Amino acid sequence: MTSEKMKILVVNDDGIFAPGIKHLAKLAAKFGEVVVVAPDSPRSGQSHAVTLIQPLRLHEAGEEDGIRYFSCSGTPADCVKLAIKVVYEGRLPDYVFSGINHGSNASSNAVYSGTVAGMMEAALAGVPAVAFSLTDHSWKADFAPFLPYAEKIMAACVKSGRKDICWNVNCPDVPVLKGIKVCRQAKAYWDEDAVERVDPARRKYYWLMGDFVNKDDGKDHDLHYLAEGYVTLTPFHFDWTDYAAMKEWQESGAF
Amino acid sequence: MTSEKMKILVVNDDGIFAPGIKHLAKLAAKFGEVVVVAPDSPRSGQSHAVTLIQPLRLHEAGEEDGIRYFSCSGTPADCVKLAIKVVYEGRLPDYVFSGINHGSNASSNAVYSGTVAGMMEAALAGVPAVAFSLTDHSWKADFAPFLPYAEKIMAACVKSGRKDICWNVNCPDVPVLKGIKVCRQAKAYWDEDAVERVDPARRKYYWLMGDFVNKDDGKDHDLHYLAEGYVTLTPFHFDWTDYAAMKEWQESGAF
Repeated sequence: MTSEKMKILVVNDDGIFAPGIKHLAKLAAKFGEVVVVAPDSPRSGQSHAVTLIQPLRLHEAGEEDGIRYFSCSGTPADCVKLAIKVVYEGRLPDYVFSGINHGSNASSNAVYSGTVAGMMEAALAGVPAVAFSLTDHSWKADFAPFLPYAEKIMAACVKSGRKDICWNVNCPDVPVLKGIKVCRQAKAYWDEDAVERVDPARRKYYWLMGDFVNKDDGKDHDLHYLAEGYVTLTPFHFDWTDYAAMKEWQESGAF
Repeated sequence: MTSEKMKILVVNDDGIFAPGIKHLAKLAAKFGEVVVVAPDSPRSGQSHAVTLIQPLRLHEAGEEDGIRYFSCSGTPADCVKLAIKVVYEGRLPDYVFSGINHGSNASSNAVYSGTVAGMMEAALAGVPAVAFSLTDHSWKADFAPFLPYAEKIMAACVKSGRKDICWNVNCPDVPVLKGIKVCRQAKAYWDEDAVERVDPARRKYYWLMGDFVNKDDGKDHDLHYLAEGYVTLTPFHFDWTDYAAMKEWQESGAF
Protein backbone atom coordinates (compact mmCIF):
# COMPACT_ATOMS: atom_id res chain seq x y z
CA MET A 1 0.00 0.00 0.00
CA THR A 2 1.12 3.53 -0.70
CA SER A 3 0.62 6.37 1.76
CA GLU A 4 -2.47 7.31 -0.26
CA LYS A 5 -5.65 6.16 1.45
CA MET A 6 -7.17 2.96 0.17
CA LYS A 7 -10.18 3.40 -2.06
CA ILE A 8 -13.20 1.38 -0.94
CA LEU A 9 -16.44 1.08 -2.87
CA VAL A 10 -19.57 0.07 -0.96
CA VAL A 11 -22.63 -1.28 -2.81
CA ASN A 12 -25.76 -3.25 -1.95
CA ASP A 13 -29.05 -4.42 -3.44
CA ASP A 14 -31.46 -3.07 -0.82
CA GLY A 15 -30.85 0.45 -2.10
CA ILE A 16 -29.22 3.62 -0.85
CA PHE A 17 -31.83 4.16 1.88
CA ALA A 18 -31.35 0.76 3.53
CA PRO A 19 -29.93 0.96 7.07
CA GLY A 20 -27.50 -1.91 6.35
CA ILE A 21 -25.41 0.03 3.84
CA LYS A 22 -24.74 2.88 6.26
CA HIS A 23 -23.41 0.44 8.84
CA LEU A 24 -21.12 -1.10 6.23
CA ALA A 25 -19.92 2.25 4.88
CA LYS A 26 -19.04 3.52 8.37
CA LEU A 27 -17.15 0.32 9.15
CA ALA A 28 -15.29 0.46 5.83
CA ALA A 29 -14.27 4.06 6.59
CA LYS A 30 -11.93 2.66 9.28
CA PHE A 31 -9.87 1.15 6.43
CA GLY A 32 -9.90 3.82 3.74
CA GLU A 33 -11.76 6.43 1.73
CA VAL A 34 -15.29 5.19 1.13
CA VAL A 35 -17.62 5.89 -1.77
CA VAL A 36 -21.13 4.41 -1.73
CA VAL A 37 -22.80 3.70 -5.09
CA ALA A 38 -26.14 2.02 -4.50
CA PRO A 39 -29.43 1.47 -6.35
CA ASP A 40 -31.95 4.28 -5.94
CA SER A 41 -34.55 1.74 -4.70
CA PRO A 42 -34.54 -1.90 -3.54
CA ARG A 43 -33.23 -4.44 -6.07
CA SER A 44 -33.50 -7.65 -4.04
CA GLY A 45 -33.62 -10.77 -6.20
CA GLN A 46 -32.02 -8.99 -9.16
CA SER A 47 -29.07 -11.37 -9.19
CA HIS A 48 -26.35 -10.41 -11.69
CA ALA A 49 -28.73 -8.52 -13.99
CA VAL A 50 -27.20 -5.69 -16.01
CA THR A 51 -28.97 -2.83 -17.78
CA LEU A 52 -28.27 -3.06 -21.50
CA ILE A 53 -31.25 -1.60 -23.36
CA GLN A 54 -31.88 1.37 -21.06
CA PRO A 55 -29.53 4.19 -20.15
CA LEU A 56 -28.41 4.64 -16.55
CA ARG A 57 -28.57 7.61 -14.21
CA LEU A 58 -26.06 8.35 -11.47
CA HIS A 59 -26.69 11.10 -8.91
CA GLU A 60 -24.39 12.32 -6.16
CA ALA A 61 -26.85 12.13 -3.26
CA GLY A 62 -24.74 13.74 -0.54
CA GLU A 63 -21.88 13.32 1.91
CA GLU A 64 -21.93 12.17 5.54
CA ASP A 65 -18.96 11.62 7.85
CA GLY A 66 -16.60 12.01 4.87
CA ILE A 67 -18.41 9.29 2.88
CA ARG A 68 -19.77 10.24 -0.54
CA TYR A 69 -23.13 8.69 -1.48
CA PHE A 70 -24.26 8.14 -5.09
CA SER A 71 -27.61 6.73 -6.15
CA CYS A 72 -27.87 4.79 -9.40
CA SER A 73 -30.92 3.84 -11.47
CA GLY A 74 -29.51 0.38 -12.23
CA THR A 75 -28.81 -2.96 -10.61
CA PRO A 76 -26.02 -3.73 -8.11
CA ALA A 77 -23.80 -5.01 -10.97
CA ASP A 78 -24.49 -1.75 -12.85
CA CYS A 79 -23.50 0.19 -9.71
CA VAL A 80 -20.09 -1.50 -9.62
CA LYS A 81 -19.52 -0.89 -13.35
CA LEU A 82 -20.58 2.78 -13.18
CA ALA A 83 -18.61 3.39 -9.98
CA ILE A 84 -15.41 2.14 -11.62
CA LYS A 85 -15.92 4.01 -14.89
CA VAL A 86 -17.53 7.26 -13.72
CA VAL A 87 -16.78 7.83 -10.02
CA TYR A 88 -13.26 6.32 -10.06
CA GLU A 89 -12.70 7.48 -13.68
CA GLY A 90 -11.63 4.04 -14.91
CA ARG A 91 -9.31 3.13 -12.03
CA LEU A 92 -10.17 0.10 -9.92
CA PRO A 93 -10.93 0.65 -6.23
CA ASP A 94 -8.79 -1.34 -3.78
CA TYR A 95 -11.78 -3.16 -2.26
CA VAL A 96 -15.49 -3.59 -2.82
CA PHE A 97 -17.73 -4.36 0.16
CA SER A 98 -21.37 -5.23 -0.57
CA GLY A 99 -24.23 -5.06 1.94
CA ILE A 100 -24.97 -5.31 4.73
CA ASN A 101 -27.86 -7.17 3.13
CA HIS A 102 -31.18 -7.31 4.96
CA GLY A 103 -31.74 -11.07 4.70
CA SER A 104 -29.72 -14.25 4.27
CA ASN A 105 -27.54 -14.91 1.25
CA ALA A 106 -26.46 -18.33 2.47
CA SER A 107 -26.81 -21.45 0.32
CA SER A 108 -28.74 -20.98 -2.93
CA ASN A 109 -29.97 -17.51 -1.86
CA ALA A 110 -26.65 -16.34 -3.33
CA VAL A 111 -27.87 -17.24 -6.84
CA TYR A 112 -30.69 -14.67 -6.65
CA SER A 113 -28.88 -12.01 -4.65
CA GLY A 114 -27.96 -8.62 -6.05
CA THR A 115 -25.69 -8.06 -3.04
CA VAL A 116 -23.67 -11.18 -3.87
CA ALA A 117 -23.67 -10.15 -7.56
CA GLY A 118 -22.16 -6.77 -6.60
CA MET A 119 -19.34 -8.67 -4.91
CA MET A 120 -18.99 -11.09 -7.85
CA GLU A 121 -18.90 -8.25 -10.40
CA ALA A 122 -16.01 -6.66 -8.49
CA ALA A 123 -14.19 -10.00 -8.27
CA LEU A 124 -14.64 -10.52 -12.03
CA ALA A 125 -12.90 -7.16 -12.52
CA GLY A 126 -10.04 -8.32 -10.27
CA VAL A 127 -10.95 -6.33 -7.16
CA PRO A 128 -10.97 -8.15 -3.78
CA ALA A 129 -14.57 -8.14 -2.63
CA VAL A 130 -16.75 -9.29 0.27
CA ALA A 131 -20.56 -9.54 0.50
CA PHE A 132 -22.06 -9.15 3.99
CA SER A 133 -25.59 -10.32 4.87
CA LEU A 134 -27.62 -10.54 8.06
CA THR A 135 -30.39 -13.16 8.25
CA ASP A 136 -33.06 -10.60 9.16
CA HIS A 137 -35.16 -8.94 6.43
CA SER A 138 -36.44 -6.21 8.72
CA TRP A 139 -35.55 -2.59 8.08
CA LYS A 140 -35.12 -2.43 11.89
CA ALA A 141 -32.69 -5.34 12.01
CA ASP A 142 -30.05 -5.15 14.75
CA PHE A 143 -26.65 -5.02 13.02
CA ALA A 144 -24.68 -4.37 16.25
CA PRO A 145 -23.63 -7.97 17.06
CA PHE A 146 -22.39 -8.47 13.46
CA LEU A 147 -20.24 -5.32 13.25
CA PRO A 148 -17.12 -6.47 15.18
CA TYR A 149 -17.07 -9.67 13.13
CA ALA A 150 -17.54 -7.79 9.85
CA GLU A 151 -14.64 -5.55 10.90
CA LYS A 152 -12.45 -8.57 11.66
CA ILE A 153 -13.24 -9.96 8.20
CA MET A 154 -12.44 -6.64 6.48
CA ALA A 155 -9.17 -6.49 8.42
CA ALA A 156 -8.23 -10.04 7.35
CA CYS A 157 -9.08 -9.20 3.75
CA VAL A 158 -6.93 -6.03 3.81
CA LYS A 159 -4.06 -7.63 5.76
CA SER A 160 -3.78 -10.53 3.30
CA GLY A 161 -2.95 -8.18 0.43
CA ARG A 162 -4.56 -10.74 -1.90
CA LYS A 163 -6.42 -9.81 -5.06
CA ASP A 164 -8.39 -13.07 -5.33
CA ILE A 165 -10.77 -12.49 -2.42
CA CYS A 166 -14.42 -13.20 -3.26
CA TRP A 167 -16.15 -13.94 0.04
CA ASN A 168 -19.81 -14.49 0.82
CA VAL A 169 -20.32 -13.67 4.53
CA ASN A 170 -23.56 -14.33 6.43
CA CYS A 171 -24.50 -13.59 10.01
CA PRO A 172 -27.38 -15.10 11.99
CA ASP A 173 -29.86 -12.81 13.69
CA VAL A 174 -28.85 -13.59 17.27
CA PRO A 175 -27.65 -11.27 20.06
CA VAL A 176 -24.49 -13.26 20.86
CA LEU A 177 -22.30 -14.78 18.14
CA LYS A 178 -19.91 -17.70 18.65
CA GLY A 179 -17.25 -16.80 16.09
CA ILE A 180 -16.49 -17.13 12.37
CA LYS A 181 -16.59 -20.40 10.40
CA VAL A 182 -15.06 -20.70 6.93
CA CYS A 183 -17.32 -23.23 5.21
CA ARG A 184 -19.06 -24.37 2.06
CA GLN A 185 -22.47 -23.41 0.64
CA ALA A 186 -25.33 -25.74 1.63
CA LYS A 187 -27.25 -27.43 -1.17
CA ALA A 188 -30.76 -26.08 -0.72
CA TYR A 189 -33.28 -24.39 -2.99
CA TRP A 190 -36.36 -22.19 -3.09
CA ASP A 191 -39.52 -24.05 -3.98
CA GLU A 192 -41.77 -21.21 -5.02
CA ASP A 193 -45.50 -21.45 -5.00
CA ALA A 194 -47.44 -19.34 -7.50
CA VAL A 195 -50.34 -17.81 -5.59
CA GLU A 196 -53.18 -16.96 -7.97
CA ARG A 197 -55.15 -13.71 -7.73
CA VAL A 198 -57.72 -12.06 -9.98
CA ASP A 199 -57.56 -8.36 -10.86
CA PRO A 200 -60.64 -6.07 -11.09
CA ALA A 201 -60.82 -6.78 -14.83
CA ARG A 202 -61.05 -10.52 -13.98
CA ARG A 203 -57.62 -11.36 -15.36
CA LYS A 204 -55.46 -13.81 -13.43
CA TYR A 205 -52.07 -12.90 -12.03
CA TYR A 206 -49.58 -14.67 -9.77
CA TRP A 207 -47.34 -13.93 -6.79
CA LEU A 208 -44.26 -16.09 -6.26
CA MET A 209 -44.16 -17.18 -2.61
CA GLY A 210 -41.02 -19.02 -1.66
CA ASP A 211 -40.55 -22.03 0.57
CA PHE A 212 -36.90 -22.66 1.39
CA VAL A 213 -36.08 -26.37 1.24
CA ASN A 214 -32.83 -27.66 2.73
CA LYS A 215 -32.06 -31.28 1.86
CA ASP A 216 -28.37 -31.01 2.77
CA ASP A 217 -27.83 -32.91 6.03
CA GLY A 218 -24.12 -32.05 6.22
CA LYS A 219 -22.72 -30.36 9.31
CA ASP A 220 -20.03 -28.42 7.48
CA HIS A 221 -22.08 -25.85 5.57
CA ASP A 222 -23.32 -22.29 5.98
CA LEU A 223 -26.90 -23.14 6.98
CA HIS A 224 -25.63 -25.48 9.71
CA TYR A 225 -23.20 -22.98 11.21
CA LEU A 226 -25.70 -20.10 10.99
CA ALA A 227 -28.17 -22.20 12.99
CA GLU A 228 -25.40 -22.82 15.53
CA GLY A 229 -24.80 -19.06 15.97
CA TYR A 230 -21.67 -18.55 13.87
CA VAL A 231 -20.86 -15.95 11.24
CA THR A 232 -20.11 -17.91 8.04
CA LEU A 233 -17.55 -17.07 5.36
CA THR A 234 -17.68 -18.94 2.05
CA PRO A 235 -14.99 -18.22 -0.55
CA PHE A 236 -16.71 -18.10 -3.95
CA HIS A 237 -15.38 -18.33 -7.48
CA PHE A 238 -16.97 -17.53 -10.81
CA ASP A 239 -15.82 -20.58 -12.70
CA TRP A 240 -19.06 -22.57 -12.68
CA THR A 241 -17.53 -25.56 -14.49
CA ASP A 242 -18.31 -28.82 -12.72
CA TYR A 243 -14.88 -30.40 -13.29
CA ALA A 244 -15.88 -33.86 -12.06
CA ALA A 245 -18.85 -33.95 -14.45
CA MET A 246 -16.68 -32.50 -17.23
CA LYS A 247 -14.14 -35.34 -16.89
CA GLU A 248 -16.90 -37.92 -16.72
CA TRP A 249 -18.59 -36.68 -19.91
CA GLN A 250 -15.27 -36.24 -21.72
CA GLU A 251 -14.58 -39.93 -21.08
CA SER A 252 -18.15 -41.08 -21.76
CA GLY A 253 -17.82 -41.28 -25.54
CA ALA A 254 -21.28 -39.67 -25.79
CA PHE A 255 -20.05 -36.85 -28.06
CA MET B 1 -39.53 -43.86 -19.05
CA THR B 2 -43.20 -44.74 -19.01
CA SER B 3 -45.27 -44.95 -22.17
CA GLU B 4 -46.51 -41.44 -21.41
CA LYS B 5 -44.72 -38.84 -23.52
CA MET B 6 -41.88 -37.00 -21.84
CA LYS B 7 -42.70 -33.49 -20.71
CA ILE B 8 -40.26 -30.91 -22.00
CA LEU B 9 -40.27 -27.24 -21.02
CA VAL B 10 -38.56 -24.76 -23.34
CA VAL B 11 -37.56 -21.28 -22.11
CA ASN B 12 -35.21 -18.49 -23.19
CA ASP B 13 -34.28 -14.91 -22.38
CA ASP B 14 -34.69 -13.35 -25.83
CA GLY B 15 -38.46 -13.61 -25.48
CA ILE B 16 -41.27 -15.56 -27.06
CA PHE B 17 -40.87 -13.82 -30.45
CA ALA B 18 -37.18 -14.71 -30.88
CA PRO B 19 -36.53 -17.08 -33.80
CA GLY B 20 -34.12 -19.17 -31.70
CA ILE B 21 -36.81 -20.49 -29.34
CA LYS B 22 -38.93 -21.86 -32.19
CA HIS B 23 -35.97 -23.82 -33.52
CA LEU B 24 -35.37 -25.27 -30.06
CA ALA B 25 -39.03 -26.09 -29.43
CA LYS B 26 -39.36 -27.93 -32.75
CA LEU B 27 -36.21 -29.91 -32.06
CA ALA B 28 -37.37 -30.77 -28.53
CA ALA B 29 -40.69 -32.01 -29.98
CA LYS B 30 -38.76 -34.98 -31.42
CA PHE B 31 -38.24 -36.16 -27.82
CA GLY B 32 -41.54 -35.39 -26.11
CA GLU B 33 -44.46 -33.08 -25.50
CA VAL B 34 -43.21 -29.52 -25.56
CA VAL B 35 -44.50 -26.46 -23.73
CA VAL B 36 -42.82 -23.10 -24.29
CA VAL B 37 -42.96 -20.54 -21.47
CA ALA B 38 -40.94 -17.49 -22.42
CA PRO B 39 -40.71 -13.81 -21.47
CA ASP B 40 -43.12 -11.54 -23.33
CA SER B 41 -40.18 -9.36 -24.44
CA PRO B 42 -36.37 -9.66 -24.48
CA ARG B 43 -34.71 -10.16 -21.08
CA SER B 44 -31.07 -10.42 -22.13
CA GLY B 45 -28.66 -9.66 -19.30
CA GLN B 46 -31.27 -10.39 -16.64
CA SER B 47 -29.18 -13.19 -15.14
CA HIS B 48 -30.98 -15.10 -12.38
CA ALA B 49 -33.27 -12.19 -11.44
CA VAL B 50 -36.65 -13.14 -9.97
CA THR B 51 -39.74 -10.98 -9.63
CA LEU B 52 -40.60 -10.60 -5.95
CA ILE B 53 -42.31 -7.23 -5.48
CA GLN B 54 -44.47 -7.33 -8.59
CA PRO B 55 -47.10 -9.88 -9.59
CA LEU B 56 -46.61 -11.97 -12.71
CA ARG B 57 -48.80 -12.50 -15.76
CA LEU B 58 -48.93 -15.69 -17.81
CA HIS B 59 -50.83 -15.84 -21.12
CA GLU B 60 -51.40 -18.84 -23.36
CA ALA B 61 -50.26 -17.29 -26.64
CA GLY B 62 -51.20 -20.09 -29.02
CA GLU B 63 -50.33 -23.51 -30.38
CA GLU B 64 -48.23 -24.45 -33.39
CA ASP B 65 -47.26 -27.94 -34.56
CA GLY B 66 -48.62 -29.37 -31.30
CA ILE B 67 -46.43 -27.07 -29.18
CA ARG B 68 -48.21 -24.80 -26.67
CA TYR B 69 -46.72 -21.30 -26.29
CA PHE B 70 -47.12 -19.21 -23.12
CA SER B 71 -45.82 -15.67 -22.64
CA CYS B 72 -44.83 -14.49 -19.18
CA SER B 73 -44.30 -10.97 -17.85
CA GLY B 74 -41.29 -12.06 -15.79
CA THR B 75 -37.68 -13.14 -16.13
CA PRO B 76 -36.42 -16.52 -17.45
CA ALA B 77 -36.14 -17.83 -13.86
CA ASP B 78 -39.74 -16.68 -13.24
CA CYS B 79 -40.80 -18.54 -16.41
CA VAL B 80 -39.40 -21.81 -15.08
CA LYS B 81 -41.05 -21.33 -11.67
CA LEU B 82 -44.44 -20.40 -13.16
CA ALA B 83 -44.28 -23.20 -15.73
CA ILE B 84 -43.76 -25.78 -13.00
CA LYS B 85 -46.41 -24.40 -10.66
CA VAL B 86 -49.10 -23.24 -13.08
CA VAL B 87 -48.68 -25.01 -16.45
CA TYR B 88 -47.49 -28.34 -15.01
CA GLU B 89 -49.62 -27.88 -11.87
CA GLY B 90 -46.74 -28.53 -9.47
CA ARG B 91 -45.24 -31.54 -11.25
CA LEU B 92 -41.69 -31.27 -12.55
CA PRO B 93 -41.16 -31.58 -16.31
CA ASP B 94 -38.72 -34.30 -17.43
CA TYR B 95 -36.36 -31.84 -19.14
CA VAL B 96 -35.84 -28.11 -19.50
CA PHE B 97 -34.12 -26.79 -22.62
CA SER B 98 -33.25 -23.08 -22.69
CA GLY B 99 -32.53 -21.03 -25.83
CA ILE B 100 -31.47 -21.10 -28.53
CA ASN B 101 -29.95 -17.87 -27.32
CA HIS B 102 -29.09 -15.20 -29.86
CA GLY B 103 -25.52 -14.54 -28.73
CA SER B 104 -22.71 -16.32 -26.89
CA ASN B 105 -23.04 -17.55 -23.33
CA ALA B 106 -19.52 -18.88 -23.19
CA SER B 107 -17.08 -17.91 -20.44
CA SER B 108 -18.30 -15.14 -18.09
CA ASN B 109 -21.24 -14.32 -20.39
CA ALA B 110 -22.98 -17.09 -18.46
CA VAL B 111 -23.01 -14.93 -15.32
CA TYR B 112 -25.22 -12.31 -16.99
CA SER B 113 -27.35 -14.64 -19.07
CA GLY B 114 -31.04 -15.19 -18.50
CA THR B 115 -30.92 -18.21 -20.80
CA VAL B 116 -28.30 -19.86 -18.61
CA ALA B 117 -30.29 -18.84 -15.51
CA GLY B 118 -33.38 -20.60 -16.93
CA MET B 119 -31.28 -23.76 -17.17
CA MET B 120 -29.79 -23.25 -13.70
CA GLU B 121 -33.22 -22.65 -12.13
CA ALA B 122 -34.42 -25.98 -13.54
CA ALA B 123 -31.28 -27.74 -12.31
CA LEU B 124 -31.78 -26.25 -8.83
CA ALA B 125 -35.26 -27.82 -8.86
CA GLY B 126 -33.72 -31.19 -9.81
CA VAL B 127 -34.71 -31.20 -13.49
CA PRO B 128 -32.04 -32.11 -16.07
CA ALA B 129 -31.47 -28.98 -18.13
CA VAL B 130 -29.45 -27.69 -21.06
CA ALA B 131 -28.87 -24.10 -22.25
CA PHE B 132 -28.19 -23.64 -25.97
CA SER B 133 -26.60 -20.49 -27.42
CA LEU B 134 -25.36 -19.43 -30.84
CA THR B 135 -22.62 -16.79 -31.01
CA ASP B 136 -24.64 -14.52 -33.30
CA HIS B 137 -26.84 -11.76 -31.83
CA SER B 138 -28.73 -11.20 -35.06
CA TRP B 139 -32.46 -11.92 -35.27
CA LYS B 140 -31.58 -13.40 -38.68
CA ALA B 141 -28.91 -15.74 -37.30
CA ASP B 142 -28.54 -19.04 -39.17
CA PHE B 143 -29.37 -21.81 -36.71
CA ALA B 144 -29.26 -24.61 -39.32
CA PRO B 145 -25.66 -25.81 -38.77
CA PHE B 146 -26.25 -25.98 -34.98
CA LEU B 147 -29.45 -28.03 -35.07
CA PRO B 148 -28.05 -31.55 -35.68
CA TYR B 149 -25.54 -30.98 -32.87
CA ALA B 150 -28.20 -29.65 -30.52
CA GLU B 151 -30.26 -32.73 -31.32
CA LYS B 152 -27.31 -35.02 -30.58
CA ILE B 153 -26.86 -33.28 -27.21
CA MET B 154 -30.57 -33.59 -26.36
CA ALA B 155 -30.40 -37.28 -27.29
CA ALA B 156 -27.35 -37.85 -25.05
CA CYS B 157 -29.11 -36.04 -22.19
CA VAL B 158 -32.27 -38.15 -22.56
CA LYS B 159 -30.38 -41.42 -23.12
CA SER B 160 -28.30 -40.96 -19.97
CA GLY B 161 -31.40 -40.96 -17.76
CA ARG B 162 -29.48 -38.76 -15.33
CA LYS B 163 -31.10 -36.08 -13.20
CA ASP B 164 -27.92 -34.08 -12.56
CA ILE B 165 -27.52 -32.63 -16.04
CA CYS B 166 -26.81 -28.89 -16.07
CA TRP B 167 -25.08 -28.14 -19.37
CA ASN B 168 -24.09 -24.85 -20.94
CA VAL B 169 -23.82 -25.40 -24.72
CA ASN B 170 -22.47 -22.84 -27.16
CA CYS B 171 -22.13 -22.93 -30.93
CA PRO B 172 -19.95 -20.72 -33.11
CA ASP B 173 -21.52 -18.83 -35.98
CA VAL B 174 -19.83 -20.78 -38.79
CA PRO B 175 -21.39 -22.76 -41.67
CA VAL B 176 -19.45 -25.98 -40.98
CA LEU B 177 -18.91 -27.30 -37.47
CA LYS B 178 -16.13 -29.70 -36.47
CA GLY B 179 -17.89 -31.54 -33.63
CA ILE B 180 -18.63 -31.23 -29.91
CA LYS B 181 -16.04 -30.53 -27.20
CA VAL B 182 -16.80 -31.03 -23.51
CA CYS B 183 -14.68 -28.36 -21.83
CA ARG B 184 -14.32 -25.77 -19.07
CA GLN B 185 -15.42 -22.12 -18.99
CA ALA B 186 -12.72 -19.65 -20.02
CA LYS B 187 -11.74 -16.99 -17.50
CA ALA B 188 -12.65 -13.75 -19.25
CA TYR B 189 -14.72 -10.72 -18.34
CA TRP B 190 -16.65 -7.78 -19.71
CA ASP B 191 -14.88 -4.47 -19.22
CA GLU B 192 -17.76 -2.05 -19.70
CA ASP B 193 -17.26 1.51 -20.66
CA ALA B 194 -19.87 4.05 -19.51
CA VAL B 195 -20.61 6.27 -22.49
CA GLU B 196 -21.88 9.65 -21.31
CA ARG B 197 -24.78 11.43 -23.01
CA VAL B 198 -26.83 14.51 -22.09
CA ASP B 199 -30.63 14.56 -22.29
CA PRO B 200 -32.70 17.54 -23.56
CA ALA B 201 -33.01 18.79 -19.96
CA ARG B 202 -29.17 18.80 -19.77
CA ARG B 203 -28.97 15.94 -17.32
CA LYS B 204 -26.23 13.33 -17.81
CA TYR B 205 -26.95 9.68 -18.43
CA TYR B 206 -24.82 6.68 -19.31
CA TRP B 207 -24.85 3.68 -21.63
CA LEU B 208 -22.85 0.61 -20.67
CA MET B 209 -20.80 -0.49 -23.67
CA GLY B 210 -18.99 -3.75 -23.17
CA ASP B 211 -15.51 -4.79 -24.26
CA PHE B 212 -14.93 -8.52 -23.82
CA VAL B 213 -11.46 -9.20 -22.42
CA ASN B 214 -10.04 -12.73 -22.55
CA LYS B 215 -6.86 -13.16 -20.52
CA ASP B 216 -7.14 -16.97 -20.42
CA ASP B 217 -4.46 -18.37 -22.73
CA GLY B 218 -5.49 -22.00 -22.14
CA LYS B 219 -6.33 -24.24 -25.08
CA ASP B 220 -8.88 -26.33 -23.20
CA HIS B 221 -11.74 -23.87 -22.71
CA ASP B 222 -14.96 -22.83 -24.43
CA LEU B 223 -13.64 -19.67 -26.09
CA HIS B 224 -10.73 -21.62 -27.59
CA TYR B 225 -12.89 -24.40 -29.02
CA LEU B 226 -15.54 -21.99 -30.31
CA ALA B 227 -12.81 -20.14 -32.23
CA GLU B 228 -11.71 -23.51 -33.65
CA GLY B 229 -15.24 -24.24 -34.93
CA TYR B 230 -16.51 -26.68 -32.30
CA VAL B 231 -19.78 -26.74 -30.39
CA THR B 232 -18.81 -26.54 -26.70
CA LEU B 233 -20.54 -28.25 -23.77
CA THR B 234 -19.64 -27.19 -20.23
CA PRO B 235 -21.22 -29.04 -17.30
CA PHE B 236 -22.14 -26.44 -14.67
CA HIS B 237 -22.97 -26.71 -11.01
CA PHE B 238 -24.54 -24.28 -8.62
CA ASP B 239 -22.22 -24.80 -5.69
CA TRP B 240 -20.09 -21.68 -6.03
CA THR B 241 -17.81 -22.59 -3.12
CA ASP B 242 -14.14 -22.31 -4.03
CA TYR B 243 -13.01 -25.41 -2.13
CA ALA B 244 -9.28 -24.74 -2.57
CA ALA B 245 -9.66 -21.23 -1.15
CA MET B 246 -11.96 -22.56 1.59
CA LYS B 247 -9.30 -25.04 2.78
CA GLU B 248 -6.58 -22.41 2.60
CA TRP B 249 -8.53 -19.90 4.70
CA GLN B 250 -9.67 -22.60 7.15
CA GLU B 251 -6.01 -23.38 7.79
CA SER B 252 -4.85 -19.75 7.76
CA GLY B 253 -5.69 -19.00 11.38
CA ALA B 254 -7.08 -15.64 10.22
CA PHE B 255 -10.47 -16.21 11.85
